[in-house]
Amino acid sequence: MTSDKMLPPGSTIGILGGGQLGRMLATAAAELGFRCHIYCPDGESPAFDVAAARTTAAYENQSALAAFAGSVDVVTYEFENVPAATAAFLGDQVDVLPGPRALAVSQDRLSEKELMQSLDIPVAPFARIDDLAGLEAALGQLGRPSILKTRRFGYDGKGQVAIRPGDDPAAAFEAIAGKPAVLEGFVTFAREVSALVVRGRNGETAVYDIAENVHRNHILATSTVPAQLSATTAGAAREIATRVADALDYVGLLAVEMFVVEDAGVERLLVNEIAPRVHNSGHWTQDGCIVSQFENHIRAIAGWPLGSTERHSNAVMTNLIGAEADEWATLAAEPGARLHLYGKAESRPGRKMGHVNRISPRVG
Amino acid sequence: MTSDKMLPPGSTIGILGGGQLGRMLATAAAELGFRCHIYCPDGESPAFDVAAARTTAAYENQSALAAFAGSVDVVTYEFENVPAATAAFLGDQVDVLPGPRALAVSQDRLSEKELMQSLDIPVAPFARIDDLAGLEAALGQLGRPSILKTRRFGYDGKGQVAIRPGDDPAAAFEAIAGKPAVLEGFVTFAREVSALVVRGRNGETAVYDIAENVHRNHILATSTVPAQLSATTAGAAREIATRVADALDYVGLLAVEMFVVEDAGVERLLVNEIAPRVHNSGHWTQDGCIVSQFENHIRAIAGWPLGSTERHSNAVMTNLIGAEADEWATLAAEPGARLHLYGKAESRPGRKMGHVNRISPRVG
Repeated sequence: MTSDKMLPPGSTIGILGGGQLGRMLATAAAELGFRCHIYCPDGESPAFDVAAARTTAAYENQSALAAFAGSVDVVTYEFENVPAATAAFLGDQVDVLPGPRALAVSQDRLSEKELMQSLDIPVAPFARIDDLAGLEAALGQLGRPSILKTRRFGYDGKGQVAIRPGDDPAAAFEAIAGKPAVLEGFVTFAREVSALVVRGRNGETAVYDIAENVHRNHILATSTVPAQLSATTAGAAREIATRVADALDYVGLLAVEMFVVEDAGVERLLVNEIAPRVHNSGHWTQDGCIVSQFENHIRAIAGWPLGSTERHSNAVMTNLIGAEADEWATLAAEPGARLHLYGKAESRPGRKMGHVNRISPRVG
Repeated sequence: MTSDKMLPPGSTIGILGGGQLGRMLATAAAELGFRCHIYCPDGESPAFDVAAARTTAAYENQSALAAFAGSVDVVTYEFENVPAATAAFLGDQVDVLPGPRALAVSQDRLSEKELMQSLDIPVAPFARIDDLAGLEAALGQLGRPSILKTRRFGYDGKGQVAIRPGDDPAAAFEAIAGKPAVLEGFVTFAREVSALVVRGRNGETAVYDIAENVHRNHILATSTVPAQLSATTAGAAREIATRVADALDYVGLLAVEMFVVEDAGVERLLVNEIAPRVHNSGHWTQDGCIVSQFENHIRAIAGWPLGSTERHSNAVMTNLIGAEADEWATLAAEPGARLHLYGKAESRPGRKMGHVNRISPRVG
């Protein structure tokens, strides 16, 4: 069920997941006068520290879910691997946004790619993989190197393995535990970009300026805005993101990650993956725009008019991974840098501990 | 006691007072990875919704205060009328910033004016009033109209009464219940401005651009930046605020409200009053600067380097008083406007319910 009413200030936003995205959603919601109730299995969740109410329970705990649903006016989530059964159970009692279709599609790389094909949106060449024989056949078609990726539960490079010339396909298939997968042809891209579109309950859309992303060890390292991109390609990226959001009848903030391929000086876009949530590559909007991705996600799910996605400054967002956040004192002293820390007690290698937005006057 | 160490992320900031200023301090602190513990006698405090820990108790409750002090790494406050005994009690266990001198001076209009005099900072002509005879004598000196103001606990026009030609001084003295007071000569000012200075534990200072303020019914209505002010006068306002902060060995954000008087085209500044806390006339910094007054206050009391006070945009802040906040849906749809709502359950006439920052490209 999805109602068309605007939730008035004082309403309670329920958020599944208590990590940094939930935390930043909660503070953005508070700025609009909303209360937040965070639901997370982990009692040490960073988002708990900025929420009016907290539930620590498993996503399968139906009595906890029922109580949660009864205490909130809308439910959203900070990660796309919310179990479908959890979303369906909550959805019987309260609006869950983005809706089940967005969740289903983004939880399955194959569905994601098939959706893009149905929308005439280019993706890397791919094949569905269900067994080793299929993998070997697909390698014959797509060539090497290719990348074998599990259809479900992959993120930050987890659940994927490259197959290079000489590599044993059986070993690769074993590395992903023989799970349903897709094989993707290797794409030589000039750069990676992302388009963040927000879509309201009434179908209104707005897109932030395209960010150029650099990954390191499969984890986002930096996002830079404006991206090095022709105006035509930037426009195409915005249009693709909007087309995907419209096709999903999406409500909230949707991130669409793309590769930019250059063929003889001509830029082409391939969609890599989508995320039905606020996204790391949109953290620059906190300090580069009047209305951040977090506020716009809350506005959308609350049925409010969207806020401006206009950019007032240039921005470079740099993630602070693991021990990099130990440099907080140096970063805090840097002029033009806005430091964001997530309040995580324990720093582990590969763990996102914070980010810094380096802001400069708008050019381009 | 005041230590010189930088509080690491994960430390807990204690805040006395749970209104909108405490709420906005708490979310700013969370952005830097701090936890917040709000102490407020009112169980319905807006700041509770964004805090990791809450205490509902009276400011005289020593066992609650002791437990609070034991749970936090530094204490600050969102209002200047914290009882001196409360601050002293907490100060025996933990740093309380800004310190007792700033609190004592700003709680007493007479001390405030005497401090300005000792610093050669102009104020409106005034006289100390302890009894009716003194009031009548002072009226002879300062003329009419004059304004009789209680020395303590005045805000938003409370505790003050104008004495115009023909008014009975005894009635005015009775209107303030015969409390210790000051009589202020009437000042015909061209405009009101405020300078917000932040001072770190190491004495470092930074000043935001001067805001021009309009009051309605003694309550701040709008703050506009940049102010209509010559560069010389703006520089003088910044210098005055810095001088006051230095004289108080202040730590945190200090607001200095001033009148601009024009004599034959020459601008002169008179200090009206100071507030030892984040201030309504600095709310524009949330959307006009990279680092807001709230974050800079937290940085200062945590012993961190100050953040930039540079302004990236022009801004007009408009308070939403009482029923004005009922227009939230219209305001939310206005391009270039950033809406801030405080999550107060009940709208009452004169109650500050939120504010809106209207942002435009920086000019001047």
